[in-house]
Amino acid sequence: MNVVRPGRVSVIGAGRCDAVVFETARTLGNLLARYGLMIVCGGLGGVMTAVCQGAREAGGRTIGILPGDDAADANPFVEIPVVTGLGIARNVLVVKNGDVVVAVSGGAGTLSEIGLALKIGRPVVVLGHFGGIEGVIAAETPQQAAAVVQSLLAIKPRAESY
Amino acid sequence: MNVVRPGRVSVIGAGRCDAVVFETARTLGNLLARYGLMIVCGGLGGVMTAVCQGAREAGGRTIGILPGDDAADANPFVEIPVVTGLGIARNVLVVKNGDVVVAVSGGAGTLSEIGLALKIGRPVVVLGHFGGIEGVIAAETPQQAAAVVQSLLAIKPRAESY
Amino acid sequence: MNVVRPGRVSVIGAGRCDAVVFETARTLGNLLARYGLMIVCGGLGGVMTAVCQGAREAGGRTIGILPGDDAADANPFVEIPVVTGLGIARNVLVVKNGDVVVAVSGGAGTLSEIGLALKIGRPVVVLGHFGGIEGVIAAETPQQAAAVVQSLLAIKPRAESY
Amino acid sequence: MNVVRPGRVSVIGAGRCDAVVFETARTLGNLLARYGLMIVCGGLGGVMTAVCQGAREAGGRTIGILPGDDAADANPFVEIPVVTGLGIARNVLVVKNGDVVVAVSGGAGTLSEIGLALKIGRPVVVLGHFGGIEGVIAAETPQQAAAVVQSLLAIKPRAESY
Repeated sequence: MNVVRPGRVSVIGAGRCDAVVFETARTLGNLLARYGLMIVCGGLGGVMTAVCQGAREAGGRTIGILPGDDAADANPFVEIPVVTGLGIARNVLVVKNGDVVVAVSGGAGTLSEIGLALKIGRPVVVLGHFGGIEGVIAAETPQQAAAVVQSLLAIKPRAESY
Repeated sequence: MNVVRPGRVSVIGAGRCDAVVFETARTLGNLLARYGLMIVCGGLGGVMTAVCQGAREAGGRTIGILPGDDAADANPFVEIPVVTGLGIARNVLVVKNGDVVVAVSGGAGTLSEIGLALKIGRPVVVLGHFGGIEGVIAAETPQQAAAVVQSLLAIKPRAESY
Repeated sequence: MNVVRPGRVSVIGAGRCDAVVFETARTLGNLLARYGLMIVCGGLGGVMTAVCQGAREAGGRTIGILPGDDAADANPFVEIPVVTGLGIARNVLVVKNGDVVVAVSGGAGTLSEIGLALKIGRPVVVLGHFGGIEGVIAAETPQQAAAVVQSLLAIKPRAESY
Repeated sequence: MNVVRPGRVSVIGAGRCDAVVFETARTLGNLLARYGLMIVCGGLGGVMTAVCQGAREAGGRTIGILPGDDAADANPFVEIPVVTGLGIARNVLVVKNGDVVVAVSGGAGTLSEIGLALKIGRPVVVLGHFGGIEGVIAAETPQQAAAVVQSLLAIKPRAESY
């Protein structure tokens, strides 16, 4: 009856993105799911849809922490929608619920989440233009990002980490 | 790949309770799980542990929305812990994430959640001493409460409700 | 340069109310302001407008903690609007920012705030139909409520209390 | 009786800082207060203390939005402490409550607030090392930052802006 809880990765990025970024995020989600990791995201479109779709294609699990009050806002690849009604303050919950945070491109909202993650001590892996921020780990490809996540979680005990 | 999301019931009650209340909540969780419903709760002890344990014993699914930052605070029957760091403000998220709210006894925290649920228009079923509050549906037994929940969800389309 | 911070009273009640309730809240605000206390409320209409108007008529000070993002939503008697974008979760902030909480009639939202206040250990004075809730202090008139508040704050050191 | 609400500036920066940064923030607070603007900050130490001290030295007004539940945590130059119990999620409230945001140096927490401010459309003026972030206005001195704030508020109507 007791549950075994998989490791979790918060994947952050823009709610709208081009096809290249979408494929990057989808591949990332697919790889993380294959490692047995659960995806946490903001539950909406763009990178959030892509990473959930990729994870589901590998039979993975997905949580979407939404800014609004309606679970129907979640993209169709979110298995567990969590409504908050907190607006942009839900960004805090997105980063807190992952053992590691991975940013895929993104804009100001993603920047806020990188700052929040660094502030609370989460490792942050960055694909794309925020790779130069002090304290993050820049990755070039989703394969590289997924490998870094795996190595971070191997040395960091899961139970106390999210 | 697309997900089918089960109906959800937020079960609220005290973090410490006697054996009678514990068994009531455990039976409630068991019955709701048999109806295919997912349990949402505050993730801690007492009624929250009881309802999750009952649900898991029937192979059910459980979400625990925690006040703190550490998923390890969740009781062992919580499948999906959601950390918030919001303190008591997480009560709002607990009631928002159920299609229906069921209170099992409880104190001031439970009273706050009943008020919040009524305010946002969730049906509230009450087992125990808060059954006299205007607007709630009082039930005598967990069987009766579960039957009321089932009838409420049958007439209320799930997709737009939490 | 150092500031002296006055005691604070959170006044809660419905966003729409009849003339009798309005006058009760306005009188309450007026009396509390004469005692040198600052009013905290949810910033909107009904009881919230009334208590702020009454306080301002006595030269008092008022804080309105709003559910939305726009300070222009505050009633015209709110001196310090605080926007939150947290929706109903702002109720938690309303009760936390008073040394004492006074409820004037009200509905489900007010009930939630009474529960929250009791949960976090704030004294709760009730004018109107919630006077029977266990743990609250029922008052019959705004004069009586204001006198109770004054006596509560006299025995409770202000500096560490909100 | 109706209130006139002054423009507000959210000043963000680290909770600990060296003497040079402290003097920059203190001068900034002093200048903004002379312009009749009210300071909003996170209420704690370092830059937050400095900007409030500077503002108070010019007779200005200060709001401190605190992460915790105890108003006594506010620095002594905070006139209006607002407790939240929201932890780091209070950063969202800090930026939302200013018409303009000014960052003075700072670390990951400040970075998160710059991201949040840009996301919700607040103008962001930066003193120090975050001046290169896309979308912010870099300033060299507190005098220059204060002048930019003044010009921003002159062209942006205050009433609907925070």
